[in-house]
Amino acid sequence: MAKINEDYQKLKAGYLFPEIGRRVSRFCAGNPNANVIRLGIGDVTEPLAPAIIAALHTAIDEMADRKSFRGYGPEQGYDFLRQAIVEHDFRARGVELDVDEVFVSDGSKCDSGNVLDVFGRENTVAVVDPVYPVYVDTNVMAGRTGVADDFGRYAGLVYLPVTAENGFIPELPKQRVDIIYLCYPNNPTGMVATREQLQKWVDYAKANDSIILFDAAYEGFITDPEIPHSIYEIPGAKEVAIEFRSFSKTAGFTGVRCAFTVVPKALTGTTSTGERLPFHPLWNRRHTTKFNGVSYPVQRAAEAVYSPAGKQQVQETIAFYLTNARLIREGLQALGLEVYGGVNAPYVWLKTPGGLSSWDFFDKLLSQGHLVGTPGSGFGASGEGYFRLSAFNSRENVEEAVRRFTKVVG
Amino acid sequence: MAKINEDYQKLKAGYLFPEIGRRVSRFCAGNPNANVIRLGIGDVTEPLAPAIIAALHTAIDEMADRKSFRGYGPEQGYDFLRQAIVEHDFRARGVELDVDEVFVSDGSKCDSGNVLDVFGRENTVAVVDPVYPVYVDTNVMAGRTGVADDFGRYAGLVYLPVTAENGFIPELPKQRVDIIYLCYPNNPTGMVATREQLQKWVDYAKANDSIILFDAAYEGFITDPEIPHSIYEIPGAKEVAIEFRSFSKTAGFTGVRCAFTVVPKALTGTTSTGERLPFHPLWNRRHTTKFNGVSYPVQRAAEAVYSPAGKQQVQETIAFYLTNARLIREGLQALGLEVYGGVNAPYVWLKTPGGLSSWDFFDKLLSQGHLVGTPGSGFGASGEGYFRLSAFNSRENVEEAVRRFTKVVG
Repeated sequence: MAKINEDYQKLKAGYLFPEIGRRVSRFCAGNPNANVIRLGIGDVTEPLAPAIIAALHTAIDEMADRKSFRGYGPEQGYDFLRQAIVEHDFRARGVELDVDEVFVSDGSKCDSGNVLDVFGRENTVAVVDPVYPVYVDTNVMAGRTGVADDFGRYAGLVYLPVTAENGFIPELPKQRVDIIYLCYPNNPTGMVATREQLQKWVDYAKANDSIILFDAAYEGFITDPEIPHSIYEIPGAKEVAIEFRSFSKTAGFTGVRCAFTVVPKALTGTTSTGERLPFHPLWNRRHTTKFNGVSYPVQRAAEAVYSPAGKQQVQETIAFYLTNARLIREGLQALGLEVYGGVNAPYVWLKTPGGLSSWDFFDKLLSQGHLVGTPGSGFGASGEGYFRLSAFNSRENVEEAVRRFTKVVG
Repeated sequence: MAKINEDYQKLKAGYLFPEIGRRVSRFCAGNPNANVIRLGIGDVTEPLAPAIIAALHTAIDEMADRKSFRGYGPEQGYDFLRQAIVEHDFRARGVELDVDEVFVSDGSKCDSGNVLDVFGRENTVAVVDPVYPVYVDTNVMAGRTGVADDFGRYAGLVYLPVTAENGFIPELPKQRVDIIYLCYPNNPTGMVATREQLQKWVDYAKANDSIILFDAAYEGFITDPEIPHSIYEIPGAKEVAIEFRSFSKTAGFTGVRCAFTVVPKALTGTTSTGERLPFHPLWNRRHTTKFNGVSYPVQRAAEAVYSPAGKQQVQETIAFYLTNARLIREGLQALGLEVYGGVNAPYVWLKTPGGLSSWDFFDKLLSQGHLVGTPGSGFGASGEGYFRLSAFNSRENVEEAVRRFTKVVG
């Protein structure tokens, strides 16, 4: 009999966003005239920049002509894009990468799950709590955990709680772990990590022969010049870290699909006999065998993000979202709420007022304010009593949302 | 210490196409004026159809306007595309599928590897030999095999040889197996399976509680009205088969990236305690957790393949490639070569003349005819002594290739 992967049976049924969808649908069915404003899921709302649109049209026209048509490209991405990435995202910040250390892909969500393929099953994994659920779920699917307890914490995973009490700075794990997920600017808390904090993680990883999976999908939102955009700005990080980057939030590619992952050649792991081997050829083999490259026009679109016009246009959109974040943050602070993030990130993280549970506050905000956010407990047990708001929306909706908050909470 | 996935160490180093690349580069370096014609890797050469180009431009323009901009779509694909697939690829052939049994993806190579995630590691796997190498390599990576022998056959995999002696029709496995890969029209042999042959496989799978992974990436090349395009045209197949489809070869999407996989709700597997469970929710969970949907403009492009103009234009291109295949087939037959495939498929499979090994024939054809094909042995031990030619090229190159063949072999 063909056997299923039973690790999937351990996954908690009610994934966060479907449950939000169900509650919103139910509310809308009962209140058909309500103008519901969604600050929940982190999806962009602004159109693609003109420079990106122009690059797409040009690439499409190339595909219409036999002489310029492109079929299969390199699975790892075209050199024109990999070179632009190395130049603008890294060299410009003092980080030298080889072009072939960059692997272009269709999404950093995909990569953050797929990367587990090249790791042995026996590795122990640490995640910050609250956390982007994909890190946890993909480890469950890959058989690296036991079952979940009543708080949704899986046996075998090491959780590093961040709350207002520790200033949202995770402590180093008390036991040694093999793999550590870090995400900065953070989803869901909107907090960033300083150079010193990241150095501590790199030092830990070196001392313990661990590997950091560093998710920098929101680096474009960093405005503070002191905050590193890449973990490779930290000395020694190339020996211990894989970095995930995305065009989704920075250039509005959530529906276009382009991202990349950096696997430095200096990064190594060990076999069961203690032999030390680089991860780069493993990931290269994985990427070329189980992936077939990103759509050619999309790679041209990503290249255009680095053109002078593209850079400026993309910066303007990010500034627009960051102003939204500031309006939400300041509006909520004025109401006396405890608010975090929203400065170098598109997410605002707040303590629910009156000690409400995350879901109770979700229901109150929806029914009384016709506002949708994301319950913090959906990101992990330590997110209970917190709530995430996203800055991806029109200015008008953001201003209206703040007014409604005042009505519900004020 | 972070451990690598040691199953990757079992993979044979010299993957087929890189080795071809090395030999061709070496030849070209020594013969800079040689006009080398490549009938090796199966990549399309004709531009995208006008209806597809128009759909892409329209979708790009939608992305330029806030009102029509699309961010994240459903991971499983937009309904407009899934409905077109259900209607044109299946209902038109008498197969009824639910829209949510279709999962749109960025490639059937990716899907054929990724699908293994939802199967238990202990399943036994059968492949036809010669075979598309990805089926084998992804099982090696997933830990379902031992090491390879000198012929490249991995311990633990069941190989079903197809050669001229058995008319390229694989026998049913002598032992029972859990998972069987079938690919029709076949890569690399260009052979098709009749209704009766497929029925035998479906019956085997039902009797043995096995699952067929059916790769129909080349179904668009079927011209014989008696040959099934989908395994679901066979009664009972929905209970035992997953089908992979692709726009790559049929509509020239190798550089655009769109495909889909059908996972019928009737398809089940078992747990270790014998509980029977459907695969559909498992694949849905996998697809939504580790994938983020296909680029929106690309999905509109795929939809346009089913428009009246798109259908006709795509058919014309397929007819063009099939004429190429016929010219190769007839040209080689006229030289007295044993030739297979090339009727309902873009691949011609030939017995190397004079009992040459596949690689010796490769070298002879390259050095004497400046022609590149694919050594059959690269697809598996039973491909030794065979050679694959692809019909994806200009008419001029195909005609010149046949003339050169005459010179080398005639």
